[in-house]
Amino acid sequence: MKELEDRILAEGKILPGPVLKVSSFLNHQMDADFIMELGAELARRYGDAGVTKILTIESSGIAIAVACGAALHVPVLFAKKHITSNVSGDLYQTIVHSYTHGTDYTVVVEREYLNAEDRVLIVDDFLANGKAIEGLLDLIRQAGAEAVGAGIAIEKGFQEGGAKLRENGLRVESLAIVDEMSEDGIRFRPET
Amino acid sequence: MKELEDRILAEGKILPGPVLKVSSFLNHQMDADFIMELGAELARRYGDAGVTKILTIESSGIAIAVACGAALHVPVLFAKKHITSNVSGDLYQTIVHSYTHGTDYTVVVEREYLNAEDRVLIVDDFLANGKAIEGLLDLIRQAGAEAVGAGIAIEKGFQEGGAKLRENGLRVESLAIVDEMSEDGIRFRPET
Repeated sequence: MKELEDRILAEGKILPGPVLKVSSFLNHQMDADFIMELGAELARRYGDAGVTKILTIESSGIAIAVACGAALHVPVLFAKKHITSNVSGDLYQTIVHSYTHGTDYTVVVEREYLNAEDRVLIVDDFLANGKAIEGLLDLIRQAGAEAVGAGIAIEKGFQEGGAKLRENGLRVESLAIVDEMSEDGIRFRPET
Repeated sequence: MKELEDRILAEGKILPGPVLKVSSFLNHQMDADFIMELGAELARRYGDAGVTKILTIESSGIAIAVACGAALHVPVLFAKKHITSNVSGDLYQTIVHSYTHGTDYTVVVEREYLNAEDRVLIVDDFLANGKAIEGLLDLIRQAGAEAVGAGIAIEKGFQEGGAKLRENGLRVESLAIVDEMSEDGIRFRPET
């Protein structure tokens, strides 16, 4: 999506890791109008997939997931990273490894909101090593639901997550795929 | 807002605390279309306030904040609960006490996204004791920005947060105010 690539080039900062920092418009400060456009574009790509529910993970996936849900007119469920006193009842839970923080964490959804009849679209702001999405796929499996695909704003194509998910048969649509980034600049994968 | 009161009556569950659980449409599973309506209604109420930025706190305020931001065409900033490796540079930070979890936590925003010129609308899903909003007000003060008000989906009118904020001169608009709740039912404050 050219508008997203242009925005990354204009505002993205490359930090050690390498981390692509897009906090000015995507996941700390959020350009609400632009987020709605990103969500609508994901909805367009999955418009024929019979999506009944969107699943994301707190926190930075929530905005684009809601934008996509509003365009598809389906509910959005976010997996919670901690068990809080507001989560009650039976839970599906799984463990996700975070490379960013070097720790494992548990994510949960309440069973009543994910059912065997659901056709689930996973939405997130970033795809890198794919661990968060694998965790969400595990929750979907536990519910006996079907994963129709993943809709991602920015994929780090130089990490293995996207390739692995696609090899395993998951449809993955990323609005921008960064194949290389360094202090010399960013190279995007051409859209097919 | 009658649609919100009706939805609370139809789907809300009262748990010990008392906690009003609205996880079926507001803050775990989210009815994306309805969230957009709630955001648009908050935008309508603050449409003449010259809002330049919306500030919320992760995670459950993000959806309605983005909906409001899309209606007002202003950026949305969310305060982060932990310092992650993706937060760099100079930060405004403050400490918030959580009654729900019985702990204090630090919330931060990056300085570059909150400026002395900003007229800030705080948006959140719930207002109870008001500690989260006091924390956000502190961040706004640190930036030298102006808080034009708070826009809340559900206020627990039987807790002191809303009254205290209004006594201190903050405009607070809550789409539904629960004045009493028990196993016998829910009583809303009439709209004025």
